[in-house]
Amino acid sequence: MQTFDIKGFRASFLDAIADPFYAPERDCFRYFPDGLLIVEHGKVKELGNYADLSAKYVEVPITNYSDRLIVSGFIDTHIHFPQTEMIAAYGEQLLEWLSTYTFPTERKFSDRNYAQKISSIFLDELLQNGTTTALVFAAVFPQSVDAFFEEAQRRNLRMIAGKVLMDRNAPDFLTDTAESSYVETKQLIEKWHKCDRLLYAITPRFAITSTSEQLSNAGKLLAEFPDVYLHTHLSENIKEVETVAELFPDSKGYLDVYDRAGLVGERSVFAHGVQLTDAEFARLSETKAAIAFCPTSNMFLGSGLFKLEKAKSTETPVKVGLGTDVGAGTSFSMLRTASAAYQVAQLRSQKLSAFQALFLATLGGARALCLEDKLGNLEVGKEADFVVLNLRSTSIMALRNKPFDESNPLTLAEVSDQLFATLIMGDDRAITATYIMGEVAYSQ
Amino acid sequence: MQTFDIKGFRASFLDAIADPFYAPERDCFRYFPDGLLIVEHGKVKELGNYADLSAKYVEVPITNYSDRLIVSGFIDTHIHFPQTEMIAAYGEQLLEWLSTYTFPTERKFSDRNYAQKISSIFLDELLQNGTTTALVFAAVFPQSVDAFFEEAQRRNLRMIAGKVLMDRNAPDFLTDTAESSYVETKQLIEKWHKCDRLLYAITPRFAITSTSEQLSNAGKLLAEFPDVYLHTHLSENIKEVETVAELFPDSKGYLDVYDRAGLVGERSVFAHGVQLTDAEFARLSETKAAIAFCPTSNMFLGSGLFKLEKAKSTETPVKVGLGTDVGAGTSFSMLRTASAAYQVAQLRSQKLSAFQALFLATLGGARALCLEDKLGNLEVGKEADFVVLNLRSTSIMALRNKPFDESNPLTLAEVSDQLFATLIMGDDRAITATYIMGEVAYSQ
Repeated sequence: MQTFDIKGFRASFLDAIADPFYAPERDCFRYFPDGLLIVEHGKVKELGNYADLSAKYVEVPITNYSDRLIVSGFIDTHIHFPQTEMIAAYGEQLLEWLSTYTFPTERKFSDRNYAQKISSIFLDELLQNGTTTALVFAAVFPQSVDAFFEEAQRRNLRMIAGKVLMDRNAPDFLTDTAESSYVETKQLIEKWHKCDRLLYAITPRFAITSTSEQLSNAGKLLAEFPDVYLHTHLSENIKEVETVAELFPDSKGYLDVYDRAGLVGERSVFAHGVQLTDAEFARLSETKAAIAFCPTSNMFLGSGLFKLEKAKSTETPVKVGLGTDVGAGTSFSMLRTASAAYQVAQLRSQKLSAFQALFLATLGGARALCLEDKLGNLEVGKEADFVVLNLRSTSIMALRNKPFDESNPLTLAEVSDQLFATLIMGDDRAITATYIMGEVAYSQ
Repeated sequence: MQTFDIKGFRASFLDAIADPFYAPERDCFRYFPDGLLIVEHGKVKELGNYADLSAKYVEVPITNYSDRLIVSGFIDTHIHFPQTEMIAAYGEQLLEWLSTYTFPTERKFSDRNYAQKISSIFLDELLQNGTTTALVFAAVFPQSVDAFFEEAQRRNLRMIAGKVLMDRNAPDFLTDTAESSYVETKQLIEKWHKCDRLLYAITPRFAITSTSEQLSNAGKLLAEFPDVYLHTHLSENIKEVETVAELFPDSKGYLDVYDRAGLVGERSVFAHGVQLTDAEFARLSETKAAIAFCPTSNMFLGSGLFKLEKAKSTETPVKVGLGTDVGAGTSFSMLRTASAAYQVAQLRSQKLSAFQALFLATLGGARALCLEDKLGNLEVGKEADFVVLNLRSTSIMALRNKPFDESNPLTLAEVSDQLFATLIMGDDRAITATYIMGEVAYSQ
């Protein structure tokens, strides 16, 4: 048995060990052009140069990906599993999009079998796109959470999810109450939080659809269970921000609504933040809360261009991960999401390098989710969730990116260039395989 | 032989017959859920309902695409073939991007064999993405034009291209002179214009790299050959516009520089126009000139968001086609380009429907290129260049879009919805086949 519990992977490896928004890139990444990764009991035992390590592991079975680049599994910090089937819904901005498309679709998730079916499809899509961990909105129905976690557990995935809280400004068939949301969430936390690799997030949809009472109850739960997450939306769209100001006339702003309810802390993840003020960036920084930057969604719904440079400032640094935000986001692919993030940066006269984008999709996401001790790179002891990337997966990418293997390794500059082209042009075809705890979970 | 010169295609068909920016969509498109297209000698002989036409053509061989939607071939109104290999070049906005990446790459196209090789790859990429006609920048070297046209001719494609004119502000190895550009262009026009399906475009790169003398010579050529095209860049980037103002202090603006040289007319196609003033939109409208809207490029280089609603106004209507603008554009796919156009519209609080986008990619493009009598839809007598679309080409699109065939046809609203999802999420995988003059030129 012991020989089966240890295994090796030979490939090129690139992983982030520090934040390239604050330090030179070469100090923030490890690159092994011809590397060997050893996985034991699902965790990283060692990563280094093949030439240095191979003698030590002669009896270990090695899987060879000699013309591939292995990176840490992608982390999607904001996505809605019940919106899988309504991706690419036409013509509306946020609030109208919710009422026209989202609410009728989410209604279906009162049916547990249906929720199970879509959970399975959703998780398959994630794995096919190299995403190994996600912070996930379920629907308002507790059974939608059960269905999701069961499917995630079956695949041995590290997933964070929660039941939506919504007690006003939504159709009756989708609302709970301040009281029922408290009770149901508590039961779900007790059932699922830290069950295998699963973690729970208290999940009010956003300030518009929760009363102060419901938000307070969410804060109460967060105080009772300090290691669960808070996951919601924040300052996505101008009309949304105006509506929040009308609904909470005493608040100093959108973030303050959550702050007063005790919802802003180190384990809080706020999706979007497109319309944040400088004071709100400062408050997020102070509280160590995180933002999920969802560029395909922000462009598809016309919400605007996130000020990434504000979050990545030295004055008020805020943790940031990338989010696909399917179904307002238009792709499950973190590559396409990174491509959109680059466009947002360019439209704001900023730059976003390949390594910075890869950081956001891996270690940055792990930090946003307080999972840096378990995920985000391939350091010793971390969970061996990783992606085997093909940098030449289409005819145009094969023309653009020259071949490489152990006898023709890429330089660090070349891997940066090829990775950039892969972020800009790549999609699920670039994902040769996805591994979960060292086991293949998806392969082309 | 006669039986081989006539053939039929059974599928769903959707084509534009009028501009949906100015009239109700249902009046602008023909939709045959179970249609039959008859092609004779490479041209459309008839298109209608299968039930109505099939008896008339019982002896004609029919190709069946019963779960596919056939649309007119896509028309890419702005693209650079020598930039194929440098797609997705990192980190710069227009002027720095040109000097850092473009000029060194275009130098290679003094080698005719190299130009031939890349032309072939380039045309294969176009066909693989359903693009059947394009307005193409070659390099400054006449042999790059010869190479391109030879490859296009071999494939029987309707392509428009021209040698770049550039006599200043570029490396010596890439510049011609006002005189040599006149002579060489004239020779190329005489050699290639109207040779089979090929057409010529006089192609100054942009005002920054041409002296007034060179632009005047281009105008002189245009007067001598009134049915060739003028193809250049216009008002893409703010710094570019400022530089043009410095270089041409007497001009009233960027468009005026071209206008004074006699370059603004019905067969003039200007790429980008992101920074155009209202007066310039009015002048383009007055002269019946066209704009190539290149959204993936405009976002990738951070140039800005084109004001499509200005071009599509009733006051100053301007002809518009979509352009991929590879290599600043990030995809050969007109589907991805349409997806980016939708994002640009949303970020400007505008809407862009699936049918409007399809119009831009087909009949709108044909009008922009004054090819409406030959291309843009499947009306009787037009050249039978068309695309067989799979609206369910990936797992997520197959979930999103329900199956259809002749016994389960989609309604017009459903085809609009499925087409929208295909524009937003689709890529070359959605192109089942591309036909040129009724012959298969690409098939998955």
